[in-house]
Amino acid sequence: VSGGTAPISKLGEFALIERARTLLGNESDPRVLVGIGDDTAALQPTQGKILLVTCDTQVEGTHFRRDRMSAHDLGRRAAAVNLSDIASMGGAPTFALVSLSLPPDFPLSDFDDLFRGIGDQFRAFSAKVVGGNLASTAGGLVLDITLLGEVAPNQILTRSGARPGDRICVTGSLGASAAGLRAIERFGEAAETFFPELVRAHRLPSPRVLEGQEIARSGIATAMIDVSDGLAADLLHLCDASRVGAVVHMERVPVCRELLPAAERLGESPEILALSGGEDYELLFTARAGPETDETLRQIADACGVALTIIGETVPKEEGTWIVHPDGRRTPLTAQGWNHFR
Amino acid sequence: VSGGTAPISKLGEFALIERARTLLGNESDPRVLVGIGDDTAALQPTQGKILLVTCDTQVEGTHFRRDRMSAHDLGRRAAAVNLSDIASMGGAPTFALVSLSLPPDFPLSDFDDLFRGIGDQFRAFSAKVVGGNLASTAGGLVLDITLLGEVAPNQILTRSGARPGDRICVTGSLGASAAGLRAIERFGEAAETFFPELVRAHRLPSPRVLEGQEIARSGIATAMIDVSDGLAADLLHLCDASRVGAVVHMERVPVCRELLPAAERLGESPEILALSGGEDYELLFTARAGPETDETLRQIADACGVALTIIGETVPKEEGTWIVHPDGRRTPLTAQGWNHFR
Repeated sequence: VSGGTAPISKLGEFALIERARTLLGNESDPRVLVGIGDDTAALQPTQGKILLVTCDTQVEGTHFRRDRMSAHDLGRRAAAVNLSDIASMGGAPTFALVSLSLPPDFPLSDFDDLFRGIGDQFRAFSAKVVGGNLASTAGGLVLDITLLGEVAPNQILTRSGARPGDRICVTGSLGASAAGLRAIERFGEAAETFFPELVRAHRLPSPRVLEGQEIARSGIATAMIDVSDGLAADLLHLCDASRVGAVVHMERVPVCRELLPAAERLGESPEILALSGGEDYELLFTARAGPETDETLRQIADACGVALTIIGETVPKEEGTWIVHPDGRRTPLTAQGWNHFR
Repeated sequence: VSGGTAPISKLGEFALIERARTLLGNESDPRVLVGIGDDTAALQPTQGKILLVTCDTQVEGTHFRRDRMSAHDLGRRAAAVNLSDIASMGGAPTFALVSLSLPPDFPLSDFDDLFRGIGDQFRAFSAKVVGGNLASTAGGLVLDITLLGEVAPNQILTRSGARPGDRICVTGSLGASAAGLRAIERFGEAAETFFPELVRAHRLPSPRVLEGQEIARSGIATAMIDVSDGLAADLLHLCDASRVGAVVHMERVPVCRELLPAAERLGESPEILALSGGEDYELLFTARAGPETDETLRQIADACGVALTIIGETVPKEEGTWIVHPDGRRTPLTAQGWNHFR
């Protein structure tokens, strides 16, 4: 399979579907009764599991620019965003549909790279593309991925299970993706030289799929959400759904090594980046307080090779939502999350 | 809920999601553990059933024009196209995700009508919207719907089960949607006065959901597909997948009352419209030959109130695919289906 600079309009719809099928390189799977190429995929679900379904759209000009993100990275990123949603319920990803609206002059080589990126990311977490749709558009590229997953009924985590007095925990570090995006906007290609970790966090987020399943399996967690709109906004979503308040200790919020120097060079507040930057795709969860939880968090962190940090605790709803700063000051926690329509 | 001419950008993403949830008016359902408003829907599947998943995209400028189709019709149509795909496997539709990319100046009243249309169409077949995605776009509207369904393992029908000597059958009539579209293009608003049935077939296709389940349950059918690309193209898909040939008798292909006068006024061939028009969303299926099949077809037609017509028979693959014309002439059956990229 070799693309070159030819446009996709050189091939017909069915040839492109065949090409995508080859690029995705699915091995045969007894759970897939009907896969790519038919109108409808037919799948054998695992008996006794709850079915998870999510979708997420990447729109050219809104979520990405083709001159700033390679087709391979775009494919990986779109898959990662969906994987993160399944991870946030403690689920295991299973099957995906890829719906792609493309301008007729879209280069065939980018089409190939896009599907390679999608396939690479899903394969890393044992998920398979089993269908989708290709359409032509006079507008920009729109990539909509639907991902299915499974979770045992006694392990599913939602946003609504937190109780006052729970620990608030987060995987990995925060603010890196937003700082990476701002660095790319400011420094262009050079951003990667200055701040490789931040640029990578933006272009290729690591969905916490295994971590989410370990957290769900451990039994210590009471609620979970993934950080897509920003720590503050997503914690408020969790608090709303659980009807609790929260206190977050700013100095405990984990940030990566490159964030402070990058924030300084960009003239941005590292605290705001960490609290409200968004697109971190880390997991934010609450867990019962107690020594058992501390020990379990250590075990999961060791097993997955990722930091798990307690950043605060939930409180009764009437006590509100607060940030405690290093100097002891408390300020209200407010959402500065993404709002695509304002 | 009242929309008016205000643009959707007056509301934020979360307010629009709440609005969509209200417009869809879902009743509570014990199978929906987590529904609209969360990142991921969590569903209780029916034990022992096969899971069906399909998606279809309606792109402004490619599949519809906003000045020629109301938002309500667009919503209904997008839902209908997906319902037809689930019907083609003999499945019962269950749950849907709606992914919508919208320009910020999209009128709120159209947003409301779009979701009302989606809700109305799905409700008619007991399917529920349980999630989705809203995104902003600088391009035109892109509506991508993913629909889940279920079917018993011994009832699923695919494209690949036909054997030589089977009867080729079709529900309803063919060519009306394509004729309706051409009438709208030619006569504008007046098309509805001249050819109400054709315009309706184009704007509001009737997915054959109950018919599909009855055909699957009856045990007489060997393969099934829905007619979206046109009878000829979709029959060739079925023949390819089943490794059979086919003979179709042109005079038996069912067309609606308005097709002949419309074709004459439009200067189009009614045969070509019926064979290759596309977007009929009828079911095309093969059934074992024999008196039992004839009797069962009559029963299903009576029960569903829709015509079921035998239009030909499958033959060994090496005999090819043919149309027999009323004068006895045979011409090769060729696909004239839609190809969105050429």
